[in-house]
Amino acid sequence: MARTQMTYRQSGVDIEAGEQMVGLIRSSMRSTYGPRVLDRHGQFAGLFRLDYDERLFKHNYRNPVLAGCTDGVGSKVLIAIKAGRFDTVGIDMVAMNVNDLITMGAEPLFLLDYLAVHRLDPQEAAQLVAGVAEGCRRARCALLGGETAELPDLYRRKEFDLAGFAVGVVELDRIIDGHSVEPGDVAIGLGSDGLHSNGFSLVRRLVFGQAKLKIGTRVDGLDGTLGEELLKPTRIYVQPVVSLLRRYKVKRVVRGMAHITGGGLVDNVARVVPPGLALTIRKGSWPIPPIFPVLQRLGVDEGEMYRVFNMGIGFVLIVRPTFAASVMRRLARSGERPYLLGKLRRGQGGVQLR
Amino acid sequence: MARTQMTYRQSGVDIEAGEQMVGLIRSSMRSTYGPRVLDRHGQFAGLFRLDYDERLFKHNYRNPVLAGCTDGVGSKVLIAIKAGRFDTVGIDMVAMNVNDLITMGAEPLFLLDYLAVHRLDPQEAAQLVAGVAEGCRRARCALLGGETAELPDLYRRKEFDLAGFAVGVVELDRIIDGHSVEPGDVAIGLGSDGLHSNGFSLVRRLVFGQAKLKIGTRVDGLDGTLGEELLKPTRIYVQPVVSLLRRYKVKRVVRGMAHITGGGLVDNVARVVPPGLALTIRKGSWPIPPIFPVLQRLGVDEGEMYRVFNMGIGFVLIVRPTFAASVMRRLARSGERPYLLGKLRRGQGGVQLR
Repeated sequence: MARTQMTYRQSGVDIEAGEQMVGLIRSSMRSTYGPRVLDRHGQFAGLFRLDYDERLFKHNYRNPVLAGCTDGVGSKVLIAIKAGRFDTVGIDMVAMNVNDLITMGAEPLFLLDYLAVHRLDPQEAAQLVAGVAEGCRRARCALLGGETAELPDLYRRKEFDLAGFAVGVVELDRIIDGHSVEPGDVAIGLGSDGLHSNGFSLVRRLVFGQAKLKIGTRVDGLDGTLGEELLKPTRIYVQPVVSLLRRYKVKRVVRGMAHITGGGLVDNVARVVPPGLALTIRKGSWPIPPIFPVLQRLGVDEGEMYRVFNMGIGFVLIVRPTFAASVMRRLARSGERPYLLGKLRRGQGGVQLR
Repeated sequence: MARTQMTYRQSGVDIEAGEQMVGLIRSSMRSTYGPRVLDRHGQFAGLFRLDYDERLFKHNYRNPVLAGCTDGVGSKVLIAIKAGRFDTVGIDMVAMNVNDLITMGAEPLFLLDYLAVHRLDPQEAAQLVAGVAEGCRRARCALLGGETAELPDLYRRKEFDLAGFAVGVVELDRIIDGHSVEPGDVAIGLGSDGLHSNGFSLVRRLVFGQAKLKIGTRVDGLDGTLGEELLKPTRIYVQPVVSLLRRYKVKRVVRGMAHITGGGLVDNVARVVPPGLALTIRKGSWPIPPIFPVLQRLGVDEGEMYRVFNMGIGFVLIVRPTFAASVMRRLARSGERPYLLGKLRRGQGGVQLR
């Protein structure tokens, strides 16, 4: 869509480099296309056919509701810049968006990216978009378009920002928003892949500021270098969650879901716990990945750790108690690490960690 | 949706200021909602009911195709910062997106914004979002959500970036992409409201760099100050274009449309002129707004002016010749300034200005 043309024109890079990037980006984008993407010449917008198999779509969606959300990678981009590695933050950007989408019960359809740079480096931009495309393949959605804006007076040399926007679809009466959560329901956490994409302002202050560590430093307890650990992509929970929802479509086993981002477990799970209900999450009911104690030892108190970071749980599902065991088995078979976090009960006080 | 919660938490601003902004932003957003927006507690994504009146939607859309696009305001944000005026660039951002959407024949449904700031100033952020909401009302689409990212290490003090993403819908066999453009078809241009949102890197270099003018300077030939002229919002062509398409739904009078952005008339109109056809646009067939000669006199050659700026035409429609006069009358009645730019003919050479 617009990206290729816009980039090329607005960038002011030499024609050969521009064309090279267009080629690289186009093949990344196409790797995410299913039969519902309409790829036409000279488009000013990306086109996604909602109803490409009319009978199938109409069978599943009588009252389709579109879900849309937007998020960026935050200051994790500064870690990528420091490490000179550009193929992972695109995955983070997709994850931040699609993990939000699926909490509502929505199935991701497509995503668009906004990449703003100081000066366009075709290789770097192509790597960034390749990461976005990799995230889209993991999330089973199409990368429908994007914008590469060259803004030398707004961004510093070598720096960039990366944000995205995802659209999904959910049947009206299957929207999941926590309103049906009841006493006795069970909270299940899914293991995270490390820091994901939150808290990087604090991380950078601790690691590079206070402790004066380098991106290539090896730290006791971590596999690989600090840079490798910090750049681990955010886990994308689309496949296990969407297939779980499909499996239990009639029984409506899943009553609330939360993507654990800034604010940590407490604030995010609280968004789907109705008034009059309470949940105590037991610390120790899941393993804490090694990066968190490493950061804590650099001088963060435990309460702050749990408020800023995911601490090992990237996504939470609240499910009907009689199905908890089978849901956990199913999630484990999908490759997730599910942990029983606690049970909902009547009471005030919302979500607490103990 | 996510915005209110995310902003509040990630910003680190004092609670009172944060709550104040949340209140201001929420009422801006709600001013754009129609009955299709579902406003639920604690949402991780915005929800838009595609089919809120099942019979109406199904009557109009048998094979709905979603159109998605993304764009930012570019370095026009730096003009807003210099002028200390934050309520207009949101309109530009919406315009840049929805004017792209409608070129495909799509009707805008909703938009989300991504606002990245150095430090959150609740009043400024609320003004920016109020501008976005104003743009959405003009474009008749819902502001479904947004993200405010506070990134002090990526953006300089007082600076910000603003991008957006818009989604629309178009019936499969009514997608407009120029493929049906024929010899004899007529190109009609719609008047722009000045610079719109392109070429501001050049503008800033000319006006503030070379000519050392101030944002408050009054320049001969311009109404108001330089800042007022440069910040005029991009015209939103949704209402006239969408109502034209509805009026001529059966006759398919409109065969191609182009939003005139970076690259100017030639490059953008060329995107909807099929191979083997040519169009000569006659200079002088429309009035050039006073800002363009002012800039040209500061030292830009004429060719470059037409490549970088819209020169007074913000949107182009290619229509069947027998309907050209009635289309122009209808557009004028909608409040537009339509101009006959030229006729399509067989030939090579694409789009030329003469």
